[in-house]
Amino acid sequence: MSELRYDPVKKVWSVIATDRSRKPDDFLVKRLEFRKEEINICPFCKGNEDRAGSEIFSIRKKDEWLTRVVPNKYPAFRIEGELKRTGHGMYDAVNAVGAHEVVIETPKHHVNIGSYTDQILYNLFSTFKERLIDLQKDTRFRYILPFKNYGLLAGASIEHPHSQIIALPVTPNVVKTKLSASLAHYKSKERCLFCDILDQEREENSRVIYENQDFVAICPYASALPFEISIYPKRHNHCFTSTDEGEMSGLADITREIFLRLYNVLENPQLNMVVHTSPPVVKRPSQPAYWTSIREDFHWHIEITQRLSGVAGFESGTGFYINPVAPESAAQYLKGAGK
Amino acid sequence: MSELRYDPVKKVWSVIATDRSRKPDDFLVKRLEFRKEEINICPFCKGNEDRAGSEIFSIRKKDEWLTRVVPNKYPAFRIEGELKRTGHGMYDAVNAVGAHEVVIETPKHHVNIGSYTDQILYNLFSTFKERLIDLQKDTRFRYILPFKNYGLLAGASIEHPHSQIIALPVTPNVVKTKLSASLAHYKSKERCLFCDILDQEREENSRVIYENQDFVAICPYASALPFEISIYPKRHNHCFTSTDEGEMSGLADITREIFLRLYNVLENPQLNMVVHTSPPVVKRPSQPAYWTSIREDFHWHIEITQRLSGVAGFESGTGFYINPVAPESAAQYLKGAGK
Repeated sequence: MSELRYDPVKKVWSVIATDRSRKPDDFLVKRLEFRKEEINICPFCKGNEDRAGSEIFSIRKKDEWLTRVVPNKYPAFRIEGELKRTGHGMYDAVNAVGAHEVVIETPKHHVNIGSYTDQILYNLFSTFKERLIDLQKDTRFRYILPFKNYGLLAGASIEHPHSQIIALPVTPNVVKTKLSASLAHYKSKERCLFCDILDQEREENSRVIYENQDFVAICPYASALPFEISIYPKRHNHCFTSTDEGEMSGLADITREIFLRLYNVLENPQLNMVVHTSPPVVKRPSQPAYWTSIREDFHWHIEITQRLSGVAGFESGTGFYINPVAPESAAQYLKGAGK
Repeated sequence: MSELRYDPVKKVWSVIATDRSRKPDDFLVKRLEFRKEEINICPFCKGNEDRAGSEIFSIRKKDEWLTRVVPNKYPAFRIEGELKRTGHGMYDAVNAVGAHEVVIETPKHHVNIGSYTDQILYNLFSTFKERLIDLQKDTRFRYILPFKNYGLLAGASIEHPHSQIIALPVTPNVVKTKLSASLAHYKSKERCLFCDILDQEREENSRVIYENQDFVAICPYASALPFEISIYPKRHNHCFTSTDEGEMSGLADITREIFLRLYNVLENPQLNMVVHTSPPVVKRPSQPAYWTSIREDFHWHIEITQRLSGVAGFESGTGFYINPVAPESAAQYLKGAGK
């Protein structure tokens, strides 16, 4: 079985995914090509439902599915079994208990980010919400991540529009850092860190790309990568699952606008989209220190990063990024590209 | 001028490199192609020295240069001027004072990682040492990073074999984490974290690829990426600049062995190599808390990561990696590929 291992030097967990084990040859052939079996008979297309595994959830119109969730065929985490934390000499490991689901966003095989509709995105985010609510009940999970990889460079291996949801038995360190930053800010100022950022960004207005009634999209002040984008709800809300129906429409609208502008300015770039929300609030035997009982100091948000070149090599190893596009210019380009 | 900006949520610094400012079009053309001007008349080749900028350092044999250091033509940091820390509303910035140098490793234009010689590598590491000793005298610098990007996916834009040295006015957060992990371990156990790792690895012997008299190369227990490699000196030594001449020969030997094995097993993979050493020990006005006066609890080392596919997209955003190759199998493949 796969396991999570902790690096005592870098203080991060990684999954050693022996279930999807690969040999050196696997990296030599088909580099940067979509998985061939999938192109011939796509398991995500209408009519091939039996190839995708048993349905976990779906949104339907009459008898037809619009969005459906299935288990990942090559899961990094498995839902079965007890969580076991073990030592290995000076090292630490956890067995890879978790969930790894695929959200098939539409029955259509070809939808690029320039042609997403409000309806597809509304269904996608509603699906994220329903799956989060369900998975948060499982007390083995410390964190649940909905995300989308678009394009081979961004880690997608299948072309058919899809997203993923991963439930983890540990909290990723990037999330821990965000949680502790927002908690520290709240403790010292009794204000939300993200609300303060939004106030400054909307007043300054040099990094705002688009806003509607409920959401704002900006290029962050300290963007590590070119054309990085964050989407924030205007209403202070720590948890994505508390998003109401009106806000869901606003979220679909702003995401479609951002996708379209990226498509226009960067000619269909490959990208990653991650939803960052507060961890489940269920009490666990050993509550980590950076958790309060309810994380109301947090503010959920979406991050979209473009995979434009091979520049992230050295950077991902050192955590130090050199970004050749100022967020102010990125915002300017994207602002004017809404048609 | 370029500036460093601090992300108050992720707690990381990024360089907004307006000096190398790019427009969206720059990302559309020549994606994954070496810079054309450089292929026609390579500024790093013998005879074109005047195209590379003024020489900072060189290793010569009679009148011919073997290795030389020049300023980066597109620097992310500039050596001129005072360090200025400024606020921008709730945000923090530092002007991009630092150094950005290029090490031309050999006069030859075509050397792949399968054909490096001990001599080229000995000169490369000796050059790193000399430049570190010189740059560490400058009290504006908090951290100095020698590294190599090999291949387009790894961030190299020029084919001619070269490495880089960056001196930074801030410490990258990955380095801070390592420093605080080794300090905490030393404080609680009065032993070096890295020496403990080496003891366990050499005893277990399942992740060791190669060792010589002074160095060991392993695939780390919690490897985030397939075929990740760390090279450690056997002698406890916090600072790369204290490496003696005998050790330098051992370092050249083990690096050549590792490069060759990677070339054989992964067919000339694109890779990043970073030297991690303790920060300069010069006293500064505001000494950060994770510094002791001399970082003798640290243990310098080298990390080599292969850029095998586009998988690092989602992962670099969350700090959470799914690695499909167990380090034990990676070590096994590499161990047997020394010829």
